[in-house]
Amino acid sequence: MNTLKVALLGCGNVGSQVARILLDDAADLASRSGARLELAGIAVRNVDAPRDVDLPRDLFTDDAETLVKDADIVIELMGGLEPARSLILRSIEHGASVVSGNKALLAADGPALYEKASAAGVELYYEAAVAGAIPILRPIRESLSGDRIKRVLGIVNGTTNYILDQMDTTGAAFEDALKAAQTLGYAEADPTADVEGLDAAAKGTLLASLAFHTTFPLDAVKCEGITGITSADIDAAKDTGFLIKLLAIAEKQPTKDGGEGVSVRVHPTLLPRTHPLAAVHGAFNAVFVEAENAGELMFYGQGAGGRPTASAVLGDVVSAARRMVSGGRGRTETTGKHLPVLGEESILTSYYIDIDAADQPGVLAKIAHVFADHGVSIEVMRQTMHTEDLVSIADGTASAELRIITHRGTEESLAATVEAIKDLDIVNSVTSVLRVEGV
Amino acid sequence: MNTLKVALLGCGNVGSQVARILLDDAADLASRSGARLELAGIAVRNVDAPRDVDLPRDLFTDDAETLVKDADIVIELMGGLEPARSLILRSIEHGASVVSGNKALLAADGPALYEKASAAGVELYYEAAVAGAIPILRPIRESLSGDRIKRVLGIVNGTTNYILDQMDTTGAAFEDALKAAQTLGYAEADPTADVEGLDAAAKGTLLASLAFHTTFPLDAVKCEGITGITSADIDAAKDTGFLIKLLAIAEKQPTKDGGEGVSVRVHPTLLPRTHPLAAVHGAFNAVFVEAENAGELMFYGQGAGGRPTASAVLGDVVSAARRMVSGGRGRTETTGKHLPVLGEESILTSYYIDIDAADQPGVLAKIAHVFADHGVSIEVMRQTMHTEDLVSIADGTASAELRIITHRGTEESLAATVEAIKDLDIVNSVTSVLRVEGV
Repeated sequence: MNTLKVALLGCGNVGSQVARILLDDAADLASRSGARLELAGIAVRNVDAPRDVDLPRDLFTDDAETLVKDADIVIELMGGLEPARSLILRSIEHGASVVSGNKALLAADGPALYEKASAAGVELYYEAAVAGAIPILRPIRESLSGDRIKRVLGIVNGTTNYILDQMDTTGAAFEDALKAAQTLGYAEADPTADVEGLDAAAKGTLLASLAFHTTFPLDAVKCEGITGITSADIDAAKDTGFLIKLLAIAEKQPTKDGGEGVSVRVHPTLLPRTHPLAAVHGAFNAVFVEAENAGELMFYGQGAGGRPTASAVLGDVVSAARRMVSGGRGRTETTGKHLPVLGEESILTSYYIDIDAADQPGVLAKIAHVFADHGVSIEVMRQTMHTEDLVSIADGTASAELRIITHRGTEESLAATVEAIKDLDIVNSVTSVLRVEGV
Repeated sequence: MNTLKVALLGCGNVGSQVARILLDDAADLASRSGARLELAGIAVRNVDAPRDVDLPRDLFTDDAETLVKDADIVIELMGGLEPARSLILRSIEHGASVVSGNKALLAADGPALYEKASAAGVELYYEAAVAGAIPILRPIRESLSGDRIKRVLGIVNGTTNYILDQMDTTGAAFEDALKAAQTLGYAEADPTADVEGLDAAAKGTLLASLAFHTTFPLDAVKCEGITGITSADIDAAKDTGFLIKLLAIAEKQPTKDGGEGVSVRVHPTLLPRTHPLAAVHGAFNAVFVEAENAGELMFYGQGAGGRPTASAVLGDVVSAARRMVSGGRGRTETTGKHLPVLGEESILTSYYIDIDAADQPGVLAKIAHVFADHGVSIEVMRQTMHTEDLVSIADGTASAELRIITHRGTEESLAATVEAIKDLDIVNSVTSVLRVEGV
């Protein structure tokens, strides 16, 4: 049996688990790979820093350049753009296959790196970069390679899913649920990247590029976080058989010129409680895929954490090793396309709108008229009168709550409808606007 | 660009969709495979039989032997053991890679076929044979190849899931839900294979062999169907926050001699309503995987149907084509192990037991005593007095309902406990015994 040299770059939360498994499960990994996987070294900035896992001291080096020179497989878990990018390119030049968990680098530079790997006939795998332990890259790249994916809806940020799940199940306010997430280590001291949807946006672009064999610029993601979600929103959703999840939605749609375009958006979304994504609790992640022939598929699991992410990394390592053992060139990525980014005039969605209006005759008709004017049709409309104040009913200043769910329309026309409703004199305020999926 | 000749054996529900996609989506499939996929012919018993899909008449032949001789990739969708097995072996001998959806053949003869394919350096893929459109073979064989799977829980039979879902959501009785399934084409006129769990058992053995790299004999599956499930069982489950699903459970556990063994069982199972498998509605399938490092994963989708299953077949076809384009030998299966089959003394589960007992002082103590004698501990016990009949309370013949959920114990000790409880003079009857998972 041959031996393949494995170089590990980075030894944090995930890297230390990868090293542990390479050492502890060497026999199993060898029988599955068809080759012994020898951990040749671990490159870190500071070889003396304390580690979560007890690993042999002599494996550590601060000379990553030299380490990758001799490696057959390079595992890059440093994060960040540089020196990760240069080391990956160096590894590919030396003929090594590369396994990376570097979401930021792949979202920024993926296509250029795939091209280099493909030209060199080596593998570049990155299962761990999207949704942690969930096998999503291989199912999309291989199992669905004979199908056409139409849409991907992902719960790809565990922190925000934990917060929304807590608000839903315990009635906690946003701030308290966030504090609980911070205490449990799910959320960072500065939670901006999570709660504003920026992390989900980066993962959404990776999902879009995988699913639609194209590139998608991160700055073209329409992104809205969950900081505006109140307990009242959660309760209103509950009342109507829905719940709120932060989704990254990547979608392919026809363009007006007869071609195809792609959109990626991140926003809090109402989902029916019977939807498979509604059963994703706590800090778990899930990716829901709609394909032309396969129909609806969902992939569920842990989106983060040292051991789960290490599992994804090692699956890639074994795949790369098997390929080396069996011979043949590395698999070519087919992300060559550059489909146009769709604008608001092409994105179809449906809105839930909560309106505080005067309780007067003709109010419903006036509001319905605004919808009709914008070509938006109404699926459900519910009116609840606020009857606490009998005096206000008598003097005509009583208010009513209207909850409306629209049919699918363009983002553009729906947004314009909401603006026009706000301008009606019989409307006190539009208290909530949320997008709806799965109906 | 090279051309690869594809031979299709069988043109039923799935085969006709595979042929349609090969013809309609030829350009996309070529760009993903790196080779043109030419449908060289379709072997059927009767070339003049009517088809669901309109396909060119000159593709059909009744001479499968000659068709496979020239093929690079053979798609076997005939079903049954012969002549499917002989034709697959003939194809492998000719150097073709094989894609099969033949669950029965693979459950019976898989290991021998993998061995032949591996010796010939060709591929044998069978994603469509397990859980239809759901990518499960590739995630288990590749994405989790660096991890260790402990347990697989599968909703792998759409018919029974539809029936149980109907009973749960509409309150229908078993017979009515079965009739509805038959009307919709989900259940056959003779539904035995589905409702008795035999179909799920065959899929359970395939899942076990995939997950644990071993063989598992179909006749060693402990199998119990859903014909005994009553509306009362469904309601009792609802009362306690559970629902009932038919699960195929494949599990690896230590044996007494320090080795490892595998069990596969199929039975109706209580699951908490918050469990991801509880959100699998209608005729959908899902496979829940527990791995040592990845933790909990779930794969969800359509388990049957022409187009969804064709999607899985074509994913395999593209993978096989890519391998031929890139060169190298076919991937070796690692199902070489023959782990022992575990008996009832090693299978751990927890029971839900519904007991109709006399409403007398000391009843609870007597029942609790039986559990303790068998080393089974109780997690939850609930007592409901039947108060309708005041006379019976007065004369001491009143009865009470006891609902008990146990901690995990061996199947052997739990079954013995139930028998001993039935023998108690204060027990009128044990009205329901169901296994519980996910608690």
